[in-house]
Amino acid sequence: MKITVINTGGTFNKRYNPIKGQLEVPSDSIALDKIVASCHNIEFEIKNIVSKDSLDMTDSDREEICEAIKSSKNDKVIIIHGTDTVHLTSKLIKEKQIEKQIVFTGAMVPMSIDTVEATMNFSQALGFLSAKVENGTYIAMHGVVVDCLKLVKNRELGQFLIQK
Amino acid sequence: MKITVINTGGTFNKRYNPIKGQLEVPSDSIALDKIVASCHNIEFEIKNIVSKDSLDMTDSDREEICEAIKSSKNDKVIIIHGTDTVHLTSKLIKEKQIEKQIVFTGAMVPMSIDTVEATMNFSQALGFLSAKVENGTYIAMHGVVVDCLKLVKNRELGQFLIQK
Amino acid sequence: MKITVINTGGTFNKRYNPIKGQLEVPSDSIALDKIVASCHNIEFEIKNIVSKDSLDMTDSDREEICEAIKSSKNDKVIIIHGTDTVHLTSKLIKEKQIEKQIVFTGAMVPMSIDTVEATMNFSQALGFLSAKVENGTYIAMHGVVVDCLKLVKNRELGQFLIQK
Amino acid sequence: MKITVINTGGTFNKRYNPIKGQLEVPSDSIALDKIVASCHNIEFEIKNIVSKDSLDMTDSDREEICEAIKSSKNDKVIIIHGTDTVHLTSKLIKEKQIEKQIVFTGAMVPMSIDTVEATMNFSQALGFLSAKVENGTYIAMHGVVVDCLKLVKNRELGQFLIQK
Repeated sequence: MKITVINTGGTFNKRYNPIKGQLEVPSDSIALDKIVASCHNIEFEIKNIVSKDSLDMTDSDREEICEAIKSSKNDKVIIIHGTDTVHLTSKLIKEKQIEKQIVFTGAMVPMSIDTVEATMNFSQALGFLSAKVENGTYIAMHGVVVDCLKLVKNRELGQFLIQK
Repeated sequence: MKITVINTGGTFNKRYNPIKGQLEVPSDSIALDKIVASCHNIEFEIKNIVSKDSLDMTDSDREEICEAIKSSKNDKVIIIHGTDTVHLTSKLIKEKQIEKQIVFTGAMVPMSIDTVEATMNFSQALGFLSAKVENGTYIAMHGVVVDCLKLVKNRELGQFLIQK
Repeated sequence: MKITVINTGGTFNKRYNPIKGQLEVPSDSIALDKIVASCHNIEFEIKNIVSKDSLDMTDSDREEICEAIKSSKNDKVIIIHGTDTVHLTSKLIKEKQIEKQIVFTGAMVPMSIDTVEATMNFSQALGFLSAKVENGTYIAMHGVVVDCLKLVKNRELGQFLIQK
Repeated sequence: MKITVINTGGTFNKRYNPIKGQLEVPSDSIALDKIVASCHNIEFEIKNIVSKDSLDMTDSDREEICEAIKSSKNDKVIIIHGTDTVHLTSKLIKEKQIEKQIVFTGAMVPMSIDTVEATMNFSQALGFLSAKVENGTYIAMHGVVVDCLKLVKNRELGQFLIQK
């Protein structure tokens, strides 16, 4: 299977900088590397772009993400994105009606702090793309992969929950 | 989404017993609990049965697994199984042609030692079952979820690889 | 052996709050609990006070720490403290010439992110107090335990280094 | 500070071999490396010898350990050793009355499974050697560093406890 991963930053990637004493969004894919290392049956194309906390994303950043999806080598695309504005970016991408299977994912806790939640969200996207799925824009978080409009962050609970 | 998990033991579950100085297959679901804790959109039925290294599984154990699948509350079933004989058990289950979506998974390294590989394999099964998939018997390991006959353990590499 | 631990906060204790999306200094001793759980030969008195990033510590906070040392049940005292102003607090305590063996420690990376550095620094203090040491004010960081004036944080490297 | 570490194997070093499906005692110092990486004030000499589960140690292995202590560059020596026969080896070394400060340590759970207990035991030895201690043969486990004859493994509890 061939998958393009567009890694845009967000909590998923955050790492602690002991000199500055704070968490930073790096522009590398170290948070992703350990998962990728166990994916012996996938040929990945990985693009690290934007590299921001999603609260800081601009229209221009979202345009860059859109172009990266369009120009990706593969029809199966996973986008790692901050959780605060993933609803905005995914809605924008959905409206573009790109003929690919696009899955947004991310994490509430950095991979560097809790490997389980981040690995789970990303790997759900892998499993979903292993099935024959229609072109569309999906989100993979907290147990399920569904249309990107149907799973919404509950900011009090810190959980993505299916809208009823 | 509703999913039944039949946890039969294997490397996935192994934990170190400091008194005995060795890894043991427990009969609980502690290895699974941390993943389940982040699955806010899934209602799980979890059955801990057999609880063996899969090299020690008998025909009777496999019959018990088969019955557990048939009697499970849900049509979506994940079976955590040792990697050494998962090909035997999954082939047997496939031949029974049960009208459910059955996904075998497991790990090469215990969840208690490496959370990433075990979480990845299990979560791929979750993602796969989020898609509309046909009834069948599948295996989720090392990046992909495919028909259980197509992914085979390479014992020299310690990797499950798609048969060409 | 009996030891009083005065846990004042700092990086050692920081935990990620997924709702707020940031690291916080909690007022509990969860970061310490896993170390304490393996100390089968020590009777601890643990006091959680101040609970601040050490950059935010006031003169009043330092007075509170001083009182906690004086009123501690034991003559062996470990103080967990933020690394940014540990030199100020430890110098102040040293000047008080309290008749106890007082060891400051802390971490450059939170225990919740890197268990090794935090555990190492704290456990050096334990080992030092196992020896017959004179009353005084010491600091345990990055491999050694010495008089608190001799080990200084190098802010470019993020390391506590012995002054030559 | 200069310290020689003689790493003889034991549970401290055990790592899981996914191909063989079991824990092995490696002949490298990977388990030690992460601790050493934070010891910015120590110059280490590290010797990996014997590399065995201590139940398998022979008289010849113990002789080799003795020679390694005698020929070590430094007067401060830490010996990482399996917990099952550390009482035999340390008693033997104590009887040799070598004019150095020798501290045995180890772990009940491999560093690769639980970083905290292993890091704690080793780092107590570091802290103890930071104090001015008399030549002798000591053991650093579970909170304290004492004469090697005084701390004994309780095999039912899996804990090293001071003999009363």
